Amino acid sequence: MKDGRVVIIGGDAAGMSAAAKIRREQPERDILVLEKTDYTSYSACGIPYFISGMVDNFTNLIARTPQTFRKEYGIDVRTAHEVVEIDPADHRVRIHDKSNGREFSEAFDQLLIATGAQPLCPELPGISTTGVFGLSTLASGKQVYDFIQSQSPRRAVIVGGGYIGLEMAEALTRRGMQVSLIQRSPQVMETLDPDMGALVSDALNKIGVNLFLEENFVEIEAADGRVKAVVSNKRSLPADIVILGLGTRPNSRLAAEAGIELGIKNAIRVDGRMCTSSPGILAAGDCAATTHRVSGREVHIALGTIANKQGVVAGTNLAGGQAWFPGVVGTAVSKICDVEVARTGLQEKELCELGIDYAMATIEANTRAGYFPGAGKITVKMFAEKKNGRLLGAQIVGMEGAAKRIDVVATALTASITVADIIDLDLSYAPPFSPVWDPIQTAARQLVKKL
Amino acid sequence: MKDGRVVIIGGDAAGMSAAAKIRREQPERDILVLEKTDYTSYSACGIPYFISGMVDNFTNLIARTPQTFRKEYGIDVRTAHEVVEIDPADHRVRIHDKSNGREFSEAFDQLLIATGAQPLCPELPGISTTGVFGLSTLASGKQVYDFIQSQSPRRAVIVGGGYIGLEMAEALTRRGMQVSLIQRSPQVMETLDPDMGALVSDALNKIGVNLFLEENFVEIEAADGRVKAVVSNKRSLPADIVILGLGTRPNSRLAAEAGIELGIKNAIRVDGRMCTSSPGILAAGDCAATTHRVSGREVHIALGTIANKQGVVAGTNLAGGQAWFPGVVGTAVSKICDVEVARTGLQEKELCELGIDYAMATIEANTRAGYFPGAGKITVKMFAEKKNGRLLGAQIVGMEGAAKRIDVVATALTASITVADIIDLDLSYAPPFSPVWDPIQTAARQLVKKL
Repeated sequence: MKDGRVVIIGGDAAGMSAAAKIRREQPERDILVLEKTDYTSYSACGIPYFISGMVDNFTNLIARTPQTFRKEYGIDVRTAHEVVEIDPADHRVRIHDKSNGREFSEAFDQLLIATGAQPLCPELPGISTTGVFGLSTLASGKQVYDFIQSQSPRRAVIVGGGYIGLEMAEALTRRGMQVSLIQRSPQVMETLDPDMGALVSDALNKIGVNLFLEENFVEIEAADGRVKAVVSNKRSLPADIVILGLGTRPNSRLAAEAGIELGIKNAIRVDGRMCTSSPGILAAGDCAATTHRVSGREVHIALGTIANKQGVVAGTNLAGGQAWFPGVVGTAVSKICDVEVARTGLQEKELCELGIDYAMATIEANTRAGYFPGAGKITVKMFAEKKNGRLLGAQIVGMEGAAKRIDVVATALTASITVADIIDLDLSYAPPFSPVWDPIQTAARQLVKKL
Repeated sequence: MKDGRVVIIGGDAAGMSAAAKIRREQPERDILVLEKTDYTSYSACGIPYFISGMVDNFTNLIARTPQTFRKEYGIDVRTAHEVVEIDPADHRVRIHDKSNGREFSEAFDQLLIATGAQPLCPELPGISTTGVFGLSTLASGKQVYDFIQSQSPRRAVIVGGGYIGLEMAEALTRRGMQVSLIQRSPQVMETLDPDMGALVSDALNKIGVNLFLEENFVEIEAADGRVKAVVSNKRSLPADIVILGLGTRPNSRLAAEAGIELGIKNAIRVDGRMCTSSPGILAAGDCAATTHRVSGREVHIALGTIANKQGVVAGTNLAGGQAWFPGVVGTAVSKICDVEVARTGLQEKELCELGIDYAMATIEANTRAGYFPGAGKITVKMFAEKKNGRLLGAQIVGMEGAAKRIDVVATALTASITVADIIDLDLSYAPPFSPVWDPIQTAARQLVKKL
C-alpha cells in the first residue's frame, strides 16, 4: 500500500476519476488536486449541446463540483491553481494561484499529470480577434454561449470538419445562424473513409450548412476589433462568429520541461500502468498516449471515455493496487442532427499505411425491420484481413439506432474474433430494433465472400 | 458437390434461407419446397405490429413471395402443400395438396425439415370457441386482424405473459381495447429474473393493462358460439377476444413418426451441421433444437434469427459445403410501448439449476448523458462466475436506446471474455448515445467488486 501525498494536476475526467478511485481505496490518503480553471469533472463533450440550447444550463454539464469533492470525498481540490513547473528530482510542483497571483510550491510523493488537451490554434493573422473561439474547457464553452447571447451573431464559420466542428455546425444551425464550414481535405470527418465521409457531408448539406472542402484557412479579417470574415485560399466568408475545430494537441509542455518522455503527437508516453518515464509520475487522459489494440501502434486519441478509464487505472496503481489499461480500438461516435456516425478499428488509409492485405464490404440496410415505422437507412462498411479473416474495423452512418451498433464491432475487435464469427453472433432481434440479420452481420456476410 | 433433388418441408425463415443458399451455390440444383400455408418467408415477429395498425398491410411482412422464389430463384415452391409423412428408407415424402384434396408422393435425395413451431393450446373447455386465437403463421395473424375489423371487440384477455403475450397486450391496447392478461407464474416475461420482470409489469400497468399474476387458466366461457369470458382459478374475465400466448412447441410430429430422434422439448435433435439422426435428413429453425453456448445444454428457442442462421448453415451443407452452427447464447429483445427489454446468457434460475457459483450486480443508469434531452432510465443486471470472472449473462429493462446494448454482452459471451474485460472495452460515447461509462460497463464495474 502506497502512502504519502499524491498530487494530481488537472481536475477533469482523468484527474478526478483517479482521485475518487484513490479515495475509495485509501480513505486516509492525502490527495491534492490542482485545477487551473474554476470547474472540475465536467463533460466537455456536452458543450455543443449547451451552446445549441438543447442543454439549458451549463452547470448541468458538471458531474461533481469542487465542493462535492472536498466535502464528500475529503479531497483537497484547489481551483484556479495552475501548476507552472514540475520538479521530478525534488518531488515538488510550483503553483500559480490565479486568484491572487502568488506562486508557491507543494511536495508530492506521487504525481499524476492529467492536464488534458487544447484546441489547435494556428498562428494566422487575426486569430486572436474577438469572436474567434476554440473549444476545450467548460469556461471556453461558456464564453461562446455568452458571446452568442450578447452579440446575436447571424453568420458562423466553422474551421475544420472533425467531431467538434460538425457538432458545432449543428449547434449553431439550431441557434438560427447561417453556418459555413471550411475544411482543408476533400471530406469531413477524416476518421471515416471518404465514401462514408460523403454521407456525412450529405447530412450537413441537408441541414443547410455550406461546405467548402479542399480549402485552406488563411486568415481572419477583422474590423473594429471584431471578426468580419474568414479568408480561405479560395474565398472570403463573412462571419460574426468563428469556431476553430482543427483538432487538439496534448497539454504536455510541463511534462516535457520536466524531462518526461513524450510519444506520438507529443502526448506523454505511458505504459499500461499509466507510468511515465519518470519514477513516481503517472499521466492519464487527453495529455497521454495509448496503444491501439488492432494496429499495436502508439496513438493519441482525446476522448472522455479513455480519460475516465485511464484515470481509474492510474488511481488504482497510485493507491498501491495493480491495474492495466489495455489500450483502445479507436471507437468514436457522433450525431449530426438525424444522422448518426460511428467508427472503430482501422480505416482504409491506416490499413494501407500498415501494409495489411485487407478485404472490405459496404452494405445498406435498415435500422429496424423494413416494414416497421421509423425504419431508416444504415450503411455499414467493414474490413477484415485477407489471410486469416481477422476483423479490422468498421464504420457506420445511418439514422436513429444505427451508431451504437459499433459497440458489437468494438467488442469483437477486442476479443480478436473473426469476421465469420460475427455472422454467428446471437444478436438481438425484434422488428422495432433490427432486421432479422443485424446490419453488422449483413456486412460480415458480404465481407466473408471477399476473403 | 451434392446433387439430386433436395426437398424442403416448410417455406418460412429456415426453409427459404436454406433454399436460397442452395440456389446461390448450385444454380442447377433441383429444389422443391413444400409449404402448407399460402405464404413464404414472412416475419411472424411482425404480426403484433400488423394487428396494432403500426404496419398497415400484412403483405409488408412478406419478405419474398412464392412467385419471387419461382421466378427469380428458380425454386419449385408449392404452397398449400402439406407433407403428411416422411419415409426415410424410401427417401420419399407423402404430400396433401390442400387446393384439391389429393395426395401424392415425391422422392428426395436430401431432405430438410423446417416445419417450425406452433402455439401451445391446452385442451381446456371452450378453447376452440370463435374469438380465441393462437398466433404463429401469417394466416393466423390475418385471422385475428380480420376478427377485430369485423367484430370490433372491446375487451381482450391475453393468456400468458411471454413475448407474444406482451406484444399483443400492447397491440390490442393500441387498438383501443381494454386488455387483461393472466399469467400462471408470479411474474411476466419469465426469461427475466423476477426483479427485472417486475419492471416490465410496471410498464404494462402504465399503459393500462390489467395484470392477473399467479392465476391458472381454467376454461373459456362461450355464449352463442362466441367467447364470453376467460375463467381462471380466481375470477372470470369478460372477453370479446382471447389471445393464447402460452409458448410454442416444435412441429416435430412428422420427424418423430419417421423415427428421427427428438431432443429437448421434443425438438428435432441436430448436430452443428443441422443433420438429424437419419442420414440425408437435416432440420433447421423452430422445429429443431440447438446448443446453448454458455450452459452447454441442448435448448429449444423459437426465434427468427436462429431460424435464418440455421437455414443458411443447412443450405450450405445441403449444397455440399461445410458449415457449422455453433449454437446460441439466449439473446432476446422486446419492446412494450416505451419500455425496451433484453436478455442474454443465463438467468438466476438457470444458474441455480446448473449449480454455478455466481455473483450478480444490478445498476441503474441513463440511456444517454444525464443532461441530454431524452435521457431515460436503464436498469442492467449482470452475472459472472465467482471462481474465474467468466461472464454468464445480463438483462436490461429501460427506455429508448436501452435494449440493443445487450448485443455487447452477447458478443462478449460468445468470445468468452471476462467481466473485467467488459470494463476495458472501448465502447462508443457521445452525449446523445450514452453516459461516459456505458451502462453495460457500469454494471460490470459493480459486478467485479463482488467476485
